[in-house]
Amino acid sequence: MTTINVGIIGAGRIGQLHASNILNSNLLNLNAIADIHTDHLKGTIYEREVPMITNEPERVLEDPEIDAVFICSSTDSHIRFIKAAAKAGKHILCEKPISFNLEETKEVLQVINEAGVKFQVGFNRRFDKHFRKVAETVQEGKIGNPHIIKVSSRDPEPPPEEYIAGSGGMFMDMTIHDFDMMRYLSGSEVTEVSVKAANLVDPMFARKGDVDTAIITLTFENGAMGVIDNSRQAVYGYDQRIEVFGDQGAVAADNEAQTNVQISTQNAITIDQPKYFFLDRYKDAYEDEINEFATAILEDKPLLCTADDGYKAELMANAAKLSWEEQRSVSLAEFHLVHKI
Amino acid sequence: MTTINVGIIGAGRIGQLHASNILNSNLLNLNAIADIHTDHLKGTIYEREVPMITNEPERVLEDPEIDAVFICSSTDSHIRFIKAAAKAGKHILCEKPISFNLEETKEVLQVINEAGVKFQVGFNRRFDKHFRKVAETVQEGKIGNPHIIKVSSRDPEPPPEEYIAGSGGMFMDMTIHDFDMMRYLSGSEVTEVSVKAANLVDPMFARKGDVDTAIITLTFENGAMGVIDNSRQAVYGYDQRIEVFGDQGAVAADNEAQTNVQISTQNAITIDQPKYFFLDRYKDAYEDEINEFATAILEDKPLLCTADDGYKAELMANAAKLSWEEQRSVSLAEFHLVHKI
Amino acid sequence: MTTINVGIIGAGRIGQLHASNILNSNLLNLNAIADIHTDHLKGTIYEREVPMITNEPERVLEDPEIDAVFICSSTDSHIRFIKAAAKAGKHILCEKPISFNLEETKEVLQVINEAGVKFQVGFNRRFDKHFRKVAETVQEGKIGNPHIIKVSSRDPEPPPEEYIAGSGGMFMDMTIHDFDMMRYLSGSEVTEVSVKAANLVDPMFARKGDVDTAIITLTFENGAMGVIDNSRQAVYGYDQRIEVFGDQGAVAADNEAQTNVQISTQNAITIDQPKYFFLDRYKDAYEDEINEFATAILEDKPLLCTADDGYKAELMANAAKLSWEEQRSVSLAEFHLVHKI
Amino acid sequence: MTTINVGIIGAGRIGQLHASNILNSNLLNLNAIADIHTDHLKGTIYEREVPMITNEPERVLEDPEIDAVFICSSTDSHIRFIKAAAKAGKHILCEKPISFNLEETKEVLQVINEAGVKFQVGFNRRFDKHFRKVAETVQEGKIGNPHIIKVSSRDPEPPPEEYIAGSGGMFMDMTIHDFDMMRYLSGSEVTEVSVKAANLVDPMFARKGDVDTAIITLTFENGAMGVIDNSRQAVYGYDQRIEVFGDQGAVAADNEAQTNVQISTQNAITIDQPKYFFLDRYKDAYEDEINEFATAILEDKPLLCTADDGYKAELMANAAKLSWEEQRSVSLAEFHLVHKI
Repeated sequence: MTTINVGIIGAGRIGQLHASNILNSNLLNLNAIADIHTDHLKGTIYEREVPMITNEPERVLEDPEIDAVFICSSTDSHIRFIKAAAKAGKHILCEKPISFNLEETKEVLQVINEAGVKFQVGFNRRFDKHFRKVAETVQEGKIGNPHIIKVSSRDPEPPPEEYIAGSGGMFMDMTIHDFDMMRYLSGSEVTEVSVKAANLVDPMFARKGDVDTAIITLTFENGAMGVIDNSRQAVYGYDQRIEVFGDQGAVAADNEAQTNVQISTQNAITIDQPKYFFLDRYKDAYEDEINEFATAILEDKPLLCTADDGYKAELMANAAKLSWEEQRSVSLAEFHLVHKI
Repeated sequence: MTTINVGIIGAGRIGQLHASNILNSNLLNLNAIADIHTDHLKGTIYEREVPMITNEPERVLEDPEIDAVFICSSTDSHIRFIKAAAKAGKHILCEKPISFNLEETKEVLQVINEAGVKFQVGFNRRFDKHFRKVAETVQEGKIGNPHIIKVSSRDPEPPPEEYIAGSGGMFMDMTIHDFDMMRYLSGSEVTEVSVKAANLVDPMFARKGDVDTAIITLTFENGAMGVIDNSRQAVYGYDQRIEVFGDQGAVAADNEAQTNVQISTQNAITIDQPKYFFLDRYKDAYEDEINEFATAILEDKPLLCTADDGYKAELMANAAKLSWEEQRSVSLAEFHLVHKI
Repeated sequence: MTTINVGIIGAGRIGQLHASNILNSNLLNLNAIADIHTDHLKGTIYEREVPMITNEPERVLEDPEIDAVFICSSTDSHIRFIKAAAKAGKHILCEKPISFNLEETKEVLQVINEAGVKFQVGFNRRFDKHFRKVAETVQEGKIGNPHIIKVSSRDPEPPPEEYIAGSGGMFMDMTIHDFDMMRYLSGSEVTEVSVKAANLVDPMFARKGDVDTAIITLTFENGAMGVIDNSRQAVYGYDQRIEVFGDQGAVAADNEAQTNVQISTQNAITIDQPKYFFLDRYKDAYEDEINEFATAILEDKPLLCTADDGYKAELMANAAKLSWEEQRSVSLAEFHLVHKI
Repeated sequence: MTTINVGIIGAGRIGQLHASNILNSNLLNLNAIADIHTDHLKGTIYEREVPMITNEPERVLEDPEIDAVFICSSTDSHIRFIKAAAKAGKHILCEKPISFNLEETKEVLQVINEAGVKFQVGFNRRFDKHFRKVAETVQEGKIGNPHIIKVSSRDPEPPPEEYIAGSGGMFMDMTIHDFDMMRYLSGSEVTEVSVKAANLVDPMFARKGDVDTAIITLTFENGAMGVIDNSRQAVYGYDQRIEVFGDQGAVAADNEAQTNVQISTQNAITIDQPKYFFLDRYKDAYEDEINEFATAILEDKPLLCTADDGYKAELMANAAKLSWEEQRSVSLAEFHLVHKI
């Protein structure tokens, strides 16, 4: 086997992104796309290039030619498709979060394990070359033991109001990437989450019981402390910066600017803004994400982000929500008990 | 009156810094230095240039030629000298913190007020050109309403162990500058302080009941949130960065490097580290601090940092200590009640 | 017509690069590859994906399905293939330089013109997003009238010795890109070229009658002056920077670093080197280059770099060689006379 | 002797700058200021602090208390004062250029030598911490053998028209600093100068037979090549950058910005402009320049820039003028012959 045959379930924005990247990859073939709605694919390159476009995901799961499925459907359908795919012996790349329900997520960990299929959760940022270099620098011990880990993560603009209700809330929808990044960067598990949050950007968030701005403090098993700052609206562009500070130094990744051009006039010196759209910012990361998934299957190697990573980030998102609701620090240990997990 | 005659009380490191800057200033004259110990001034420029060097601070306070005193002695003597100076009608520049005791600090606010003298607390960073431009950018509304305010403040190396016991603890000794910076940058009052802290740098801090690493979250009256990260040891130099993020943009000040030189070789590209020593980093700020104090007296203008600013930063330092001790968020309102202030 | 069918003549490094980019493009199809040697394509994606792989370029030119040819063969064969392709009514993308002989290059300008086919010369750097923004900033008048234009262009390492003899010399092989960039940035024609050059990097260049280091001064019709500095070896990576300085300001593009990561330790602060390999540095530019070629054909629009641009850059390369040989400034007008062009 | 007693001859802008810096220095005392005009010093700090203010420079030279004179008068008076000062056994700090006449400059080299006094020429930029670090990096061999040396040197705005006539022309007035910097950075002597220059900024320069924009190429004895670009008007501020590129790497110094503040909004990211005024940009360099002069006298150490350095920069300025006038490269060897020096 030199390439992986893929079926995509869910042809929304992220499903189409993966579809396009698969078409451009030498390691993956796109054999099928399944979605409840497929009209929007008419006349596109997918109609020309993809052998099967169907409204029945079962057809994808039953196709013996297909090695792996990408689950890009709405979050509430993930568990069902993961179980079916695992049962069918397909490797799985599933978008984040695995589910909104920690117990269900925990359950699929076992299902996947028993099925012996590869499972990668869609934490695309782990594949970003800048962040990966930061993580590797930490792992190589170049900055010693981490003491303070910082993530600034701010979207360029809020999602539409109709998106918010089904998003699982900011912590589950947006901060979950930062929770994962914290574990990735620290090489340690989080023991406590403490949230200060507010509705400062747009009242629609409060209407949906959600927040749009937060500062989240984390405590790690290895003694390090972390802080995430989030906003749903950075008017100057998608702001994605990280820093790890340790007893031997610090390592940081700055934003990727649109260009390296600097314009100097009598009034000002201007430089370019960060890339605005997450698909621009993480373009290469999305490509690497699926190619490394393919390579892990082809060479039977471990994955960079597993179902367990997906579970732990969800655990932190749940703890964050509780911390915000009860205005107190939440120990993950305590949280386990409360939720009987 | 075109210049201010100054007497300095306390000829330690910071007292001598001010002495040197006064000698180089066109607005201030150095008429006297008083300290318990004055042997270390023998043979220095101060012996040649300063008319009175004495072990009796009273002589400074009684000298009718002297317009203002700089109180640079140990913190536990501040209150006594402030009261005496105010009584003598001298303007006062007092190093931070005003005292370790909030009630005493509060008391001198009234003393100063009644005496009608100018009082400036030594928050030198307000005079730093970088930070001042950030504050002005916020005040001019260029980034809209502040949502998130961040201060990274890390010393290059820990103080000697014997210093720690008398320092008032990290929050009162070091973070107090950051607490003041937060009020300066936000243009708003803090309502709540929440601390995560640890002893990660050197066990001597724990031996003295102190911490060396902290992440401190603040809530402001105007809805903004703030976060300070502190370390007693940044091996790459004195790390002093700030950022204010608002609904119309963001403004940030980066470190001042030792030089702007970049060296590119086959192995690496290296740039210079931040200035290592606080006297280098804030050299210009210390000069501007005393010149603006002089100007405020000469032109009877308001001061950039007042006794009230000193008091409020101490209040936050006390709240931070309580937050750390009791591992909970501390509301400043609650704190007022507890301490009957 | 919604896509362009392409045949590639010449399957060396640059031919394969275009082949790979065509496979990933939605605007171009790869119908054929022709080369004297095709063994190296066995077992590659090209064998699987490209309908015709042949040792006879004529088959490509005769194929009525093919709309455009990419001429990526050795420079001495360009003229022959351009003439044949134009005669066959194929649009042409030709690698630089068009030829080593100015009169022959001039001749093909007319051939192309008469055939009415589109012709794009492979000045990939015009499609680089950074350089393009600089050019656009100049065109929009944001920096006023250009006075000084600077190009730093340094290869990471010398080519193999066997490459040098057939390269046409550094000015024709390497500086030709910078000559074109100068015309692109200035929006003006060059009137004079003055070269200081030397053999400092490797004696093999002198053995082949070539140089490896140069400073080249240009005078423009509009009064501006330009300077190019070249080296065949920048040990820290591929160094590609430009700057345009005018009476209302300046605009500059810096290198693209491998990552935005900064590592701070007790010894140094290190940042990442520029991308090392030209295929990395200009990856996106090579993709845009062929897609814009396709769009220009599909929408019958003008091209960003034409045969005339190719000719003028060659003229400058010839003038540069003469300037170096005779150690004097060479007027392009004089050059025209000398060479009867 | 622990301090140097100084008399200043010439109380214009640069004379007053040195006067102010001497007052703030612990190594130098300001004993006298002499100028034809001294009315402008009335009521200033100089009147209060300087024992002798006189219209007769002879009184300064005759004063046995005075160890050193700073010659800050108009260039045409330099030779006369240097000779008198040397005869009087005073050490000399002389502003650049030493004279407009190479033979006279050469003559004073001998006078100084015979008198055995220290002589420093006012190339303040050698004392700039950024440029000095570049020079030291080169000297330490960190970038190997220099191949290409670049200096960008652009004034923020043109001088008044009345200044131009007496300035000696742009090469002698402004580029002379860059000529010296080239020798300082390269550690090698220049053998050839080649100039392209124009009048692009303001027609007043042409009216005075001068230019305002130039690109100057240099050849060094050690094989390296250099290029200077000059403009009399960079509307965004005083632009002063250098770069040395060698076979083992490169080292560069960028401008000093007014602050390190970055403002990000929906429209743009702006950073601060370079310091605008040369007295701001080189504030520390001017201070270090006189303190190192004092130290060299007090400790009998060699100077960082000598009369010979002054002479050689003037030689290059003369060669540049000739190159521009005759539109050809000028060998300094040839120049020696022509001018019988």
